[in-house]
Amino acid sequence: MLIVGSIVIRVDDIEAQIAFWTRALDYEVREPRDPDFAVLRPRSGEGPNVSLDAVPAPRVLPPRIHLDLYAQDQAAEVARLTALGARVVPWDRMPEDADFVIMEDPEGIRFCVIDARDQLSSTNPA
Amino acid sequence: MLIVGSIVIRVDDIEAQIAFWTRALDYEVREPRDPDFAVLRPRSGEGPNVSLDAVPAPRVLPPRIHLDLYAQDQAAEVARLTALGARVVPWDRMPEDADFVIMEDPEGIRFCVIDARDQLSSTNPA
Repeated sequence: MLIVGSIVIRVDDIEAQIAFWTRALDYEVREPRDPDFAVLRPRSGEGPNVSLDAVPAPRVLPPRIHLDLYAQDQAAEVARLTALGARVVPWDRMPEDADFVIMEDPEGIRFCVIDARDQLSSTNPA
Repeated sequence: MLIVGSIVIRVDDIEAQIAFWTRALDYEVREPRDPDFAVLRPRSGEGPNVSLDAVPAPRVLPPRIHLDLYAQDQAAEVARLTALGARVVPWDRMPEDADFVIMEDPEGIRFCVIDARDQLSSTNPA
């Protein structure tokens, strides 16, 4: 048995990134945690962990790996994430019918918010 | 509702990477798919998707984001992944009691295989 257990993100300010990502995803810190490494897990019990690792890593664009966050109400989630400290990344080649919004977290980690209202209507998001 | 829906990996050879990642994780291609973008989903119905996006992206080490794959039988999974085309990445600062093995996929995407036999004994991997 092998599963996608966690997505590990290198961070500069681990406390600030814990605050952002736990709120963004409704996750909680798994205890015990190390000062420089925190595993965040879903409060719902459903879904992969997100781990924050306080070690330097270069920021390179475009990123080779990024997260697609699936939203039931995309506009509401983009607004909520913006209030938490994320920002929308403008892109001049965005297709008109795009189902995604490009954002980045407070440290510039890029992710997308996907309009997935059709896929999230069942219990299986796939 | 906002969930980690998918981890998007940029790839060079999408067919080869589909072959590797579907076997590595026991995933299947979600149809319909685009020639240059494929969503892979768990056959079990449990867990996030992995999307493969055939667009160039620089390979930079260390990666700012990587996957931790949780294994019930770490040694067996490392051997299985190696047979599929991944390789173990040597690291001279590896702690003796490390619970992880660093690997990379056929295109050099780094990931870790975590000994998670304790965490995977319940239905909730967290």
